[in-house]
Amino acid sequence: MTLPVGTDYDIRIEPIGATHFDWLRKRDYAGWVVLVDDHTRADCLPLIEAELAGTPTVIIEVPAGERFKHLDTCRFIWEEMFRGGVGRRWCCLNLGGGVIGDMGGFAASTYKRGIDFVQLPTTLLSQVDASVGGKLGIDFYDVKNSIGLFKDPIAVWVDTRFLATLPARELRSGYAEVIKHSLIADRQQWDEIREWTDLSAVNWTDIIPHSVRIKRDIVLEDPFEHGKRKALNFGHTIGHAVESYFLNRENRLLHGEGVAVGMITESWLSADRGTLAEEDLARITDYCLRVYGHQPIPRDCFDELIQLMRQDKKNERGEINFTFLARPGEAVVNQTATADQITRSLEYYNALGTS
Amino acid sequence: MTLPVGTDYDIRIEPIGATHFDWLRKRDYAGWVVLVDDHTRADCLPLIEAELAGTPTVIIEVPAGERFKHLDTCRFIWEEMFRGGVGRRWCCLNLGGGVIGDMGGFAASTYKRGIDFVQLPTTLLSQVDASVGGKLGIDFYDVKNSIGLFKDPIAVWVDTRFLATLPARELRSGYAEVIKHSLIADRQQWDEIREWTDLSAVNWTDIIPHSVRIKRDIVLEDPFEHGKRKALNFGHTIGHAVESYFLNRENRLLHGEGVAVGMITESWLSADRGTLAEEDLARITDYCLRVYGHQPIPRDCFDELIQLMRQDKKNERGEINFTFLARPGEAVVNQTATADQITRSLEYYNALGTS
Repeated sequence: MTLPVGTDYDIRIEPIGATHFDWLRKRDYAGWVVLVDDHTRADCLPLIEAELAGTPTVIIEVPAGERFKHLDTCRFIWEEMFRGGVGRRWCCLNLGGGVIGDMGGFAASTYKRGIDFVQLPTTLLSQVDASVGGKLGIDFYDVKNSIGLFKDPIAVWVDTRFLATLPARELRSGYAEVIKHSLIADRQQWDEIREWTDLSAVNWTDIIPHSVRIKRDIVLEDPFEHGKRKALNFGHTIGHAVESYFLNRENRLLHGEGVAVGMITESWLSADRGTLAEEDLARITDYCLRVYGHQPIPRDCFDELIQLMRQDKKNERGEINFTFLARPGEAVVNQTATADQITRSLEYYNALGTS
Repeated sequence: MTLPVGTDYDIRIEPIGATHFDWLRKRDYAGWVVLVDDHTRADCLPLIEAELAGTPTVIIEVPAGERFKHLDTCRFIWEEMFRGGVGRRWCCLNLGGGVIGDMGGFAASTYKRGIDFVQLPTTLLSQVDASVGGKLGIDFYDVKNSIGLFKDPIAVWVDTRFLATLPARELRSGYAEVIKHSLIADRQQWDEIREWTDLSAVNWTDIIPHSVRIKRDIVLEDPFEHGKRKALNFGHTIGHAVESYFLNRENRLLHGEGVAVGMITESWLSADRGTLAEEDLARITDYCLRVYGHQPIPRDCFDELIQLMRQDKKNERGEINFTFLARPGEAVVNQTATADQITRSLEYYNALGTS
């Protein structure tokens, strides 16, 4: 299926094949750059490689993982583009997860003042989240995505066959954004998915277009995150901090695992503020625990977590910015909470592990 | 005076003072970054420093010169922004020549996915050229401006008092863009300025708005350089190559000095193609020599120069892209010339030095 997004770009959710590349050939690029990491080169590139024949192609491989999403890898990508003779009339195909899409989109958008790029997200997380919305960039100064810009790709090609190459834990991590999309914008979908615990039985071809549509609708209304787009931050204020805290520790959390902690604690804050019903808090808590299990958060790191939240670039006027739930399917943006309230939400979460 | 440019931003050409900063304060930024180099910190910052009081300000100083317009200086600027606690609601004031404007604009446009910036150009070159048009970036892989993007500042503040701090040679270099603007778009101005040889007698307050208006009108019609904007490249295909060639040599040329060579040789090519009258070629040649003198180009470097032209990011389909003159005041874009023709234009130029 094709979701038209204004005149800007198409999101195609179907097996990538000749029709995709015929469309690309009609745009008459002088050549294509294909950015991969060591995983997607081995597991995903073979699915599209035959389509590349006949057009000058430069393949650039970077090491897989968020810890390589930094300026030096970006410098390497730019250098490889120069070495490969990539010109302004080339197009860059970013074949990988969020790291490849964010960093490859940033490198393409700044190479010779910007060349076109296509996102080919290969993880569930990037298919339902990172590849839509135009946020590009790299981590810098120990802050996630702190150097970057907003720019749309010319197309997003989602192919659920890539998901077969994902470890179950990665798939579960991406699923957190599916839960989030339903909680902030689609009560009916929430009521449906909260019955699912066996992710291997989910029909992704059905659920991904639905989830992408929620994100796309929000982004189209507020592309630069002045207001409504902040709904997408639900679960991410505390979630990001928890993810950052465990980043360099042995029991590292994946993005969605941090967001699961964030959705529980921020639902608790929503209930504490009286906007979310207690029974909905209980349902959200129960479902996230069933899917993600419980990860105890050491009491003596609460201050550091709150410090991390204060550094978030989304904050304004010294307050920590939250998105709360009014009810499942409806978010309230530009909320805030005190350090004491945040502490109590983390205590609520920790207590769940002992029950 | 204020030149309105759509709803995007204002170009103010008048002494910078309280009204400028009142306007900025009304935009309610959390703080200001002021980017300077060692020259502009000493010579230009004092003229505006009193206006900064009362708003949190982070001053970032980088070494002066094109050879520092690279990724490592950009990294330093980003790091200083983080160290200074600069947030998304800050504004960056770029106080300096083209290097500060291009690099500071790029750093601001990518810091936390983009903060606002104001250009305060302090050289004639940046006042009539670099500060208008939205081209931002740094040099990379030995190619000028090869990493960057297009983004407009929220304002350009031109203050001719800054020109008093410029060496005469720098002033003369910037003046090449004034000549170019008249040659590509304003015959009347060309007929007027070609009488001027004593630049110390020029009234810059009159000529700068006129020159900026020419550039702005062209850029507004074609912001991303698909067609008409290429008129601004007149003199720059050969000019850039000559500038690059002498970059690491003892008799280094300033940008405008290279462009002067470019305007003479590309006028010769225009005449050779029959579009420009011989008498106009003679007038352009004569005037550029009177202002810039003659710089012999070694015969044995012609091949390297042509090689440099081939690498220009403006080329398409393997041909070297030129902008020629139809007559003074009218440019013709998307022209090309063979290596043999380029060689003969350089021989024409060299012969001028012996006459």
